[in-house]
Amino acid sequence: MKIINTKDADFKAQFEQILARAKTDIKEVSSIVTSIIDDIVENKNQAIKEHIAKFDKWDVKSDEQLQIDPADMKKAYDKLDHKLRSALHMAYDRIKSYHEKQLPKSWVDFEKNGTILGQKVTPVDRAGLYIPGGKAAYPSSLLMNAIPAIVAGVEEIVVCTPTPNNEVNELLLAACHLCGITKAFKVGGASAVAAMAYGTETIPKVDVITGPGNIFVATAKKLVFGEVHIDMIAGPSEIGILSDGSANPHYLAIDLLSQAEHDEMASSIMITTCDEIANYTSKEVENYLETLSRREIAKKSIDERGAIIIAQNMDEAIDLMNEIAPEHLEVMTHNPFELLPKIKHAGAIFLGQNTPEPIGDYIAGPNHTLPTGSTAKFYSPLNVENFLKKSSIINFSKEAIDELGEACALLADTEGLTAHAESVRVRLRNEH
Amino acid sequence: MKIINTKDADFKAQFEQILARAKTDIKEVSSIVTSIIDDIVENKNQAIKEHIAKFDKWDVKSDEQLQIDPADMKKAYDKLDHKLRSALHMAYDRIKSYHEKQLPKSWVDFEKNGTILGQKVTPVDRAGLYIPGGKAAYPSSLLMNAIPAIVAGVEEIVVCTPTPNNEVNELLLAACHLCGITKAFKVGGASAVAAMAYGTETIPKVDVITGPGNIFVATAKKLVFGEVHIDMIAGPSEIGILSDGSANPHYLAIDLLSQAEHDEMASSIMITTCDEIANYTSKEVENYLETLSRREIAKKSIDERGAIIIAQNMDEAIDLMNEIAPEHLEVMTHNPFELLPKIKHAGAIFLGQNTPEPIGDYIAGPNHTLPTGSTAKFYSPLNVENFLKKSSIINFSKEAIDELGEACALLADTEGLTAHAESVRVRLRNEH
Repeated sequence: MKIINTKDADFKAQFEQILARAKTDIKEVSSIVTSIIDDIVENKNQAIKEHIAKFDKWDVKSDEQLQIDPADMKKAYDKLDHKLRSALHMAYDRIKSYHEKQLPKSWVDFEKNGTILGQKVTPVDRAGLYIPGGKAAYPSSLLMNAIPAIVAGVEEIVVCTPTPNNEVNELLLAACHLCGITKAFKVGGASAVAAMAYGTETIPKVDVITGPGNIFVATAKKLVFGEVHIDMIAGPSEIGILSDGSANPHYLAIDLLSQAEHDEMASSIMITTCDEIANYTSKEVENYLETLSRREIAKKSIDERGAIIIAQNMDEAIDLMNEIAPEHLEVMTHNPFELLPKIKHAGAIFLGQNTPEPIGDYIAGPNHTLPTGSTAKFYSPLNVENFLKKSSIINFSKEAIDELGEACALLADTEGLTAHAESVRVRLRNEH
Repeated sequence: MKIINTKDADFKAQFEQILARAKTDIKEVSSIVTSIIDDIVENKNQAIKEHIAKFDKWDVKSDEQLQIDPADMKKAYDKLDHKLRSALHMAYDRIKSYHEKQLPKSWVDFEKNGTILGQKVTPVDRAGLYIPGGKAAYPSSLLMNAIPAIVAGVEEIVVCTPTPNNEVNELLLAACHLCGITKAFKVGGASAVAAMAYGTETIPKVDVITGPGNIFVATAKKLVFGEVHIDMIAGPSEIGILSDGSANPHYLAIDLLSQAEHDEMASSIMITTCDEIANYTSKEVENYLETLSRREIAKKSIDERGAIIIAQNMDEAIDLMNEIAPEHLEVMTHNPFELLPKIKHAGAIFLGQNTPEPIGDYIAGPNHTLPTGSTAKFYSPLNVENFLKKSSIINFSKEAIDELGEACALLADTEGLTAHAESVRVRLRNEH
């Protein structure tokens, strides 16, 4: 695995390449995705059926066939191996418990003059979850998207997932049953996003669409943003590791590879203050690579997008990592907590040697749907707030408007809005 | 003003028209805006200067001239009339106090086995505020956009505003001084949004862009979403009023007009359970119209997009209003608080006869940047969270990974991710 040093003459150029890791030009697919969306808006179920025939290679014979039978979910759940079922339940419980702690409360605040100001928190009516299917079916993604919506109190949750050859992943079905999903549809890609954004005869229009997907799904989410809300636009997975001399290179190597095996486009970047750790980890990565079932993918990712950076001190390392703003950040140092105040940008932060990133993918509790490609500078992990929205609450008493009204009317005057000013002054004139 | 009844044979069609009030086809302007963005990305300041010459009709002679001199802000503030200055301060203080109540805290939670889970809250590094200028210069918009960013702790706040003929609104300058803005630039429209999203030689690249604007600004915000975060995509202003027989029709009429005067495209909709109130308010609107400085605009808005709906009871009225999901909702009923649990979708809710909507535009405290066109079903008012983001915190002890690791590895196995599973199991095997 490539090692670079911040003292290298070409370091800046090398680092720019790391920062540009996620630049994908969605313009290339925009026109294809736009025509898919237009087709769904115009032809609804009929368009979906054609897209399924084309991409997923099976014939949908009726509208009913678009929907997954909840009885099949229960069957899959009942058939689960005991250990796997209890692992799934453990994940469900821990994810639920974490997200419950995120739930904001409506609040009100009172002033002496009788003013009441506040904020009402309300779940959205309908949420649409996009869950990848086929070869890369990740039941964990269903838990991670459904549970925040359940905790938020969303009444109707809709799931869309592609089913190549009309086959649905059994563990995904079981996870649907565990989450109480009843409205799951066999449609994927941009078609699924469009169907949930605009509605069809069978698939309800939702208010928020969340969930991971390829560039077509990501582009569709961007294009329907405004018609519905979306969580974020995400790209290939990433890990950043900060390590000092105390880190165990075996751990570092396998953790770097755990992201690399996701995708050839995935990025695994370690920044360390220790030359020895850099060299040892680089070699360990090569050794481990041979043992992986997805070694071809992981090797390509490590070779083309992986790097170990040697920094001159931990402050420099953290500054660089804040620039990278990785999806996952492991802090593999002697006292990881003391670095937290300086860490500004990362989707999820894994502290210490007993906290490998995969623990957060499945079972720790926090969400695994995280901002990628430096967007952790402004996006948050998927959370209950993605399924809620707020309304301001304002109540003025007569005393309050008498006290504040004239200042308000004056500001309205200066903006030339006479009806605004009058709507306040009519109350000031009236005694009641 | 038009009165319709939910019992009318064509009510459904009439109501559909109200629901479709904000449908604007951004496709029409998308290609123009895309080329503006591409031009800014490629030619930076040079493109900005050309756009200013074309749209704002003045020649920018140097890069420095793009920036508003903070000394001019202070001068404008010092020149303010005493009453206006104190109104501006009152607004500033109340808006700040309200938004401080929204500020979320970072948190951690501890488990017996040594697990620490939490959420770190961090402000974005740079925020970009788009503030309309020229004829529709609203200094209140600067307060409403800058204060949440200040409360969030954003280190660098950038403002862009168009300055036709190189003239800046004096009250806007004064408001900039009050908010401590030092980086304000004389550029508007899609060019400003693109400049803040991608950066130029003079205008810094930001992480989040907020603020109101016309369809070009809204479209530009949508197109740069993903490169930066944005608050929402907003359209023309709206008011919805729920009223029973207790409401004062004078108040209702002027409140309806206070939105109508904003924009010919604005919508003012009242739903009432009382025929008399409907008739009286409709006449009052016509009377008041004649007195307004912006009567042409208000009349067109009321005639083409205004409506009073007579509902058969308050539950029906609320259901319809939740469908409309208005930007501003006035609840002008005998006991407005008791309706709050049923009100699901509205940007801001104004309770009772002493709380006219304009009080929320300027001085109450909650934000006046609100979701329009039914997007209150999924967007929140602008708030401090728009300028913050979260990172999950995960810390496992050896005891915790020993307890939960195998379940995690099992789930990784089922998804075919062997490096994920191994990254957990290597820790389970090791004693340390």
